[in-house]
Amino acid sequence: MRYAELRERVCEANRGLVEAGLVVLSFGNASGIDRGGGIVAIKPSGVDYATLRPEDIVVVALEDGRVVEGDGRPSSDTPAHLLLYRSFPEAGGVVHTHSAHAAAWAQARREIPCLGTTHADHFHGPVPVTRALTSEEIATDYELNTGRVIVERFASGRIDPAEVPACLDASHGPFTWGATPEEALVNAIALEQVARIAIHTLAIRPDAEPISEALLDRHFRRKHGPGAYYGQPRSAREGRA
Amino acid sequence: MRYAELRERVCEANRGLVEAGLVVLSFGNASGIDRGGGIVAIKPSGVDYATLRPEDIVVVALEDGRVVEGDGRPSSDTPAHLLLYRSFPEAGGVVHTHSAHAAAWAQARREIPCLGTTHADHFHGPVPVTRALTSEEIATDYELNTGRVIVERFASGRIDPAEVPACLDASHGPFTWGATPEEALVNAIALEQVARIAIHTLAIRPDAEPISEALLDRHFRRKHGPGAYYGQPRSAREGRA
Amino acid sequence: MRYAELRERVCEANRGLVEAGLVVLSFGNASGIDRGGGIVAIKPSGVDYATLRPEDIVVVALEDGRVVEGDGRPSSDTPAHLLLYRSFPEAGGVVHTHSAHAAAWAQARREIPCLGTTHADHFHGPVPVTRALTSEEIATDYELNTGRVIVERFASGRIDPAEVPACLDASHGPFTWGATPEEALVNAIALEQVARIAIHTLAIRPDAEPISEALLDRHFRRKHGPGAYYGQPRSAREGRA
Amino acid sequence: MRYAELRERVCEANRGLVEAGLVVLSFGNASGIDRGGGIVAIKPSGVDYATLRPEDIVVVALEDGRVVEGDGRPSSDTPAHLLLYRSFPEAGGVVHTHSAHAAAWAQARREIPCLGTTHADHFHGPVPVTRALTSEEIATDYELNTGRVIVERFASGRIDPAEVPACLDASHGPFTWGATPEEALVNAIALEQVARIAIHTLAIRPDAEPISEALLDRHFRRKHGPGAYYGQPRSAREGRA
Repeated sequence: MRYAELRERVCEANRGLVEAGLVVLSFGNASGIDRGGGIVAIKPSGVDYATLRPEDIVVVALEDGRVVEGDGRPSSDTPAHLLLYRSFPEAGGVVHTHSAHAAAWAQARREIPCLGTTHADHFHGPVPVTRALTSEEIATDYELNTGRVIVERFASGRIDPAEVPACLDASHGPFTWGATPEEALVNAIALEQVARIAIHTLAIRPDAEPISEALLDRHFRRKHGPGAYYGQPRSAREGRA
Repeated sequence: MRYAELRERVCEANRGLVEAGLVVLSFGNASGIDRGGGIVAIKPSGVDYATLRPEDIVVVALEDGRVVEGDGRPSSDTPAHLLLYRSFPEAGGVVHTHSAHAAAWAQARREIPCLGTTHADHFHGPVPVTRALTSEEIATDYELNTGRVIVERFASGRIDPAEVPACLDASHGPFTWGATPEEALVNAIALEQVARIAIHTLAIRPDAEPISEALLDRHFRRKHGPGAYYGQPRSAREGRA
Repeated sequence: MRYAELRERVCEANRGLVEAGLVVLSFGNASGIDRGGGIVAIKPSGVDYATLRPEDIVVVALEDGRVVEGDGRPSSDTPAHLLLYRSFPEAGGVVHTHSAHAAAWAQARREIPCLGTTHADHFHGPVPVTRALTSEEIATDYELNTGRVIVERFASGRIDPAEVPACLDASHGPFTWGATPEEALVNAIALEQVARIAIHTLAIRPDAEPISEALLDRHFRRKHGPGAYYGQPRSAREGRA
Repeated sequence: MRYAELRERVCEANRGLVEAGLVVLSFGNASGIDRGGGIVAIKPSGVDYATLRPEDIVVVALEDGRVVEGDGRPSSDTPAHLLLYRSFPEAGGVVHTHSAHAAAWAQARREIPCLGTTHADHFHGPVPVTRALTSEEIATDYELNTGRVIVERFASGRIDPAEVPACLDASHGPFTWGATPEEALVNAIALEQVARIAIHTLAIRPDAEPISEALLDRHFRRKHGPGAYYGQPRSAREGRA
């Protein structure tokens, strides 16, 4: 079995969705990519997380989604995952959930404004929402098109997917990504918490305003990019593991 | 003891209500049917889920509810379960809860509109709410009548119970059903999550609109009926078990 | 040590407050009475539930609250518990919490209307809220007065404490009672769930109306009084234990 | 290793943040001071709580924040903790979180009014919110300035930090403090619960009014200061430990 480490990590990320309370039943999936091998490892469709084992993870070709390794049928959302990997070269992991608060923003078809530093720590600006799909896009290549509208939204809005690693599919739910499957999971957890705090904020103050550009930049740059000073230096983290 | 397997499954479904956070105290019950035997297995009334054992499950006649096996008194909601089995031939399991968010829609006496794909994955259209019972219906055969208004609502609205396996009893709470007790439980879990996301959606956008028929059909048909392509092929699932 | 069984049951009821998610920190207390002995067993003040043992429970005289057994200082709310026992002869157990949703109704100084059958199963009418205490009542015998306004509210409203075993102290939180400490705990759990569903109901429909008298009576009488038919016959329950 | 006991207690307080549900991911930190030694022990930056050990806690100088003991980089919020210790001599422990309901009040930039006795038991008046930072304050010494605006708010409002041991950093989240790290944690837990009940209260009654000064004083004084009568006498608590 090739890709054993990637399968293991993708399996762990899928289990992490349940541990973090992001999914009930089988409403979510995580994947990871091996760009050198040109393959993506992803959750099988409709399988219970509790019994999910690394050998259940399906390996598909990045190019066309054909199954390379594994007995099961890959997640029905696989075409969207693959498109995000092909369009966003920084993405090493992708997560899709129907987590309750983020899904509510998707159903309301509103972007999540950046109302505080919890948001700014992870997403450098509002978390965008896609346009609705047309009837034609729903009828043909539906799952692929749920990815296409995300790519379209980032292109038309000139949003950098490395700076805002999340998008809400209109009337559907969130996709997040990151440099690794673990980071995509962290972004899914952060997004749900940010979505939740934002709903509570509106309950207290319906006209709450987004934070300043200065505060947004400061918090995002504390954690991301060359000037980041949050967390331990990479060498220390490796020594610890 | 006959019906040992059905009792076991019904016992598990009742315990599943607690594990999924759908009930507190003894606010819920699950049942399953053996159509060949003409019997229904159901939770005993007012018994604690934590100590519930398969041998506590009561077996009653589908036709008239007389106890066929078991020492306890069956759930007070038994007449409603039996009527649903007699009226909806597809139902192999029935679940009734007072889960907080679904019960809130029932108390508000509003159907749950289909605001997103989480809903469409499980329910092919709004989850309907019954009319209120009359004083006469409350005074005589009350529990039977809580089932009758569900059947009436599906008939008058020409709703297919196999496509919308859930209904809200006005001012009361949800009933769900499915091909098996396990599926009725899954639908109860999905309904509570759908009801919760819908409340959050209205908090963000009070005038949120239902999704298009095209998107509703697409998501429901991914999972249900002859063209379904979500999950593993039946043969693979059996091989796994 | 006398009253060993009562201490044990009161200790369990206090631990049950935490298990049911009704309290954080030390925001709550449960007590039980031995009317023959003229004593009340109650939680010590400010002690952690996790380490609470039956021998920590303090036994005080019903008449004047003097400590009869136990090394600790009884709950600061003891005078309110004692007054409820002296005023409501049916009460065998009393529980006080700051559970989040019930406390919110208390802080809003609104009675909880009976919006559905979950409520009607436990409380035969709205859960009342007291008037505010005067500055004099706050300055002198404060804890006793938090009980007095409950008794006053039930007297002026001609509410039967056996039919509505709960009251909200204005700007404070709920008290519940029952025939035993266990039943007072059940009523505290039911009240919190009812308060929660009611808040969700108002979010969906701000003008939601109370249920009919006929439905309220039916549900309450299913579980309470001579015609009750919910749960197992008493003889069966005893055989089971 | 010096300061072993303080490290142990600070480690426990950081773990307590997770157990109490106040943090997800690494959104929070707790610290404790040894005023005699002129040092503060604090969580390392971005380290997982699950694997946090006492030897990971970083010890820094109160005066200038230089690392005195420990291999890791201290929390990025260290300058704010140190300023609070230097400005509030009563503080023996400080906690910072992004707990969902308290963060929502911070994001709404509204102080939490004292709507009930749960609040009054811990905070003698509204929990204040700071002004927004200027662009200059964000650009230079950002973390220090998140502390400065708290000190400024307490000075300008003539608020006694021993009476209101909490503040909301605008658009950010709460800081709490106490005589010990354990007490700072208790105040963080109480603050989140108070913030949550307040949001529910506004949902029921948007124009809910603060409680009277008399009730506020009574509840705060039950627990704090020379006349306190809540909890066990100190001697009894020590005997118990």
